[in-house]
Amino acid sequence: MAVNYTPASNILAVEGIRLSSGAAGVRYKDREDLLVVEIAEGSSVAGVFTQNRFCAAPVLLCREFMADNAPRYLVINSGNANAGTGQAGLDNAREICEELASLTGVAPEQVLPFSTGVIGELLPVEPFRAAFPEVLNGLDAGNWSSAANAIMTTDTLPKAFSKQLDIGGNTVTITGIAKGAGMIEPNMATMLAYVATDAQIEPELLQSMLKQAADLSFNSITVDGDTSTNDALMLMATGKSQAVVDTTNATVFQEALDEVCRYLAQAIIRDAEGATKFVTLTVDTAPDLETARAVAYTVARSPLVKTALFASDPNWGRLLAAIGRSPVKELDISKLSLSLGETALIKDGEPVATYTEAKGQQEMDKAEITISIGLHAGDASTTVWTSDLSHDYVTINAEYRS
Amino acid sequence: MAVNYTPASNILAVEGIRLSSGAAGVRYKDREDLLVVEIAEGSSVAGVFTQNRFCAAPVLLCREFMADNAPRYLVINSGNANAGTGQAGLDNAREICEELASLTGVAPEQVLPFSTGVIGELLPVEPFRAAFPEVLNGLDAGNWSSAANAIMTTDTLPKAFSKQLDIGGNTVTITGIAKGAGMIEPNMATMLAYVATDAQIEPELLQSMLKQAADLSFNSITVDGDTSTNDALMLMATGKSQAVVDTTNATVFQEALDEVCRYLAQAIIRDAEGATKFVTLTVDTAPDLETARAVAYTVARSPLVKTALFASDPNWGRLLAAIGRSPVKELDISKLSLSLGETALIKDGEPVATYTEAKGQQEMDKAEITISIGLHAGDASTTVWTSDLSHDYVTINAEYRS
Repeated sequence: MAVNYTPASNILAVEGIRLSSGAAGVRYKDREDLLVVEIAEGSSVAGVFTQNRFCAAPVLLCREFMADNAPRYLVINSGNANAGTGQAGLDNAREICEELASLTGVAPEQVLPFSTGVIGELLPVEPFRAAFPEVLNGLDAGNWSSAANAIMTTDTLPKAFSKQLDIGGNTVTITGIAKGAGMIEPNMATMLAYVATDAQIEPELLQSMLKQAADLSFNSITVDGDTSTNDALMLMATGKSQAVVDTTNATVFQEALDEVCRYLAQAIIRDAEGATKFVTLTVDTAPDLETARAVAYTVARSPLVKTALFASDPNWGRLLAAIGRSPVKELDISKLSLSLGETALIKDGEPVATYTEAKGQQEMDKAEITISIGLHAGDASTTVWTSDLSHDYVTINAEYRS
Repeated sequence: MAVNYTPASNILAVEGIRLSSGAAGVRYKDREDLLVVEIAEGSSVAGVFTQNRFCAAPVLLCREFMADNAPRYLVINSGNANAGTGQAGLDNAREICEELASLTGVAPEQVLPFSTGVIGELLPVEPFRAAFPEVLNGLDAGNWSSAANAIMTTDTLPKAFSKQLDIGGNTVTITGIAKGAGMIEPNMATMLAYVATDAQIEPELLQSMLKQAADLSFNSITVDGDTSTNDALMLMATGKSQAVVDTTNATVFQEALDEVCRYLAQAIIRDAEGATKFVTLTVDTAPDLETARAVAYTVARSPLVKTALFASDPNWGRLLAAIGRSPVKELDISKLSLSLGETALIKDGEPVATYTEAKGQQEMDKAEITISIGLHAGDASTTVWTSDLSHDYVTINAEYRS
């Protein structure tokens, strides 16, 4: 059950992007598992990928292909991650790209492959070969919602979001989709998200804006601390609107892009495996961003904090214990402040006298919980979003391959 | 249910150490929760404590008192950790020491306090004051087993072990007890372990031997990555045997001490919260120990690896994903080897052709599982022990305070 999350219904087309999904039967038998995205010629494409060293075959190919080529197609499958599959996995991913390239008349290096699902099983080529003709026939600009469905694995709901803004009198659309519910602690990007805009943006600026948006969204969430082998976030700018985004007006576009990415990243947490809570965790007055993030992630990953959240138990001692073991150089606990929602727990390192268990219980009973940590040692801050650790998380991941 | 663990029955007394436990009713109402350990005058005492910055009041006092004084008594309670309790917690712990000191005629600084249990609740003095007289009456050298029971919290079974060795024709005894099942990833020591010997050992040598033993035992286990606020490991050498341990014969004593500590640390993992598996994880041929430990702990902490272990699912892709996200500077995945028990999964970074799902399943069905990771980049190695992540872990920690 996702936490306060209903998929958005008003997903807007982006001129220059056409999508089509189908059922290739790679692993799932009763649902769509294949998505092809067509990108208009002349578009700029930016991407950020997992930092997991055991990155999947498709991630290796994406990096190789994007270095010298303008991508024209994305081919995405769910159910099999094509990771840990060695040279054979790379060969098969390349063959899938070649197959799509020959059907569409582009170079194989203009097709970027993406995979998500079980790690360690070879991705077969044949299901793609069989499914491509019909899927290519279905390419349409209006297919974003079905695309969001086709890339799901343990997600219970699709994630998609659109936003429009005005740039120089021209309406610009940004639409994005994402998937992911477990093995989520993105480092650079998340397990498959695709955002497109019809603005015209040079590749270098596009890449730097994508990096910023990723850091404030997908790179600020964790479900279980397990960085995936397949994380990828792509941003495509087709330039089909009259709007040009450059360094003189990048801020307004950046804000809209940040919002789209934040929405999608938060949707992943709301629909995290087994989630019953949506937790916003802020660390402020930190000496630097690295310290703020180290404290935030230590708390957000703690199994004891997460089981207390699941139980709606205001066991704030576990918050202190997690803060105290954070891998940071300096932490003066005599300055620390800690709040649960509006309720202060700790000030100047000491328990707050007005705190009562009843007040803590009231905050913990909520489905959306805010934890605020103040280090009072500087002016850096960060916000991360996380979920709780429930029986359903264990069930989902114990039964994932069965 | 602990994994292949039956408490040892032959726990030997150590001359110069007397113990007594009782029911103070600090939190638990129907069992013993208080332990007093008397250490003979002239003994050497060494200790290592948690590195959690939010360390508990008793840990602060232990550090302060041990700097200048020869400890004569340990007072240990379960049910309340006296952590996150600010100045009031420190004051109460000091008052408890003063009370015991006045009853036994030693200086308050010769009494070391230890607490384990719920964090964030003030430890009351009165239950100690009321229970001390009767507990002190019961001091006896034969009480190690009941002592191991009195310090338990979520442990299902007590942990105790004895070993004898010959030093210069004299029989030396080492006996230790420990507790701990959750909030376990010791960093210097574990949640309360007490080891005593009748050998005569100078304090400086005793401390360095304890540090080595801790690193190879308590500092090499993890249940949930949550380093406790109260970890403490104490080693007492009463010198009541004729044996003198010094730098000329330290190795033989060190080996025996390592064995006692390893037994107790492994017992904690066998009885870890919700454990159904006992996992031995080795990383070898690493460039340095730091790298070996970073890889080992990343795998050992991974919720996805641990749920796969719970499910007996040979989902080795999750092992690769965890190895790949380890926070290490260099990791050449093209050299990596990975085995599950005797079954090779990965060699030179490629899947092993002879591997079958049936072979993997056979290994994962075992209650004791060995995971071996080779980096082939040096000669450093490490072994850590861990448990799985089960429904019972979630249940135990969701209901801990209820």
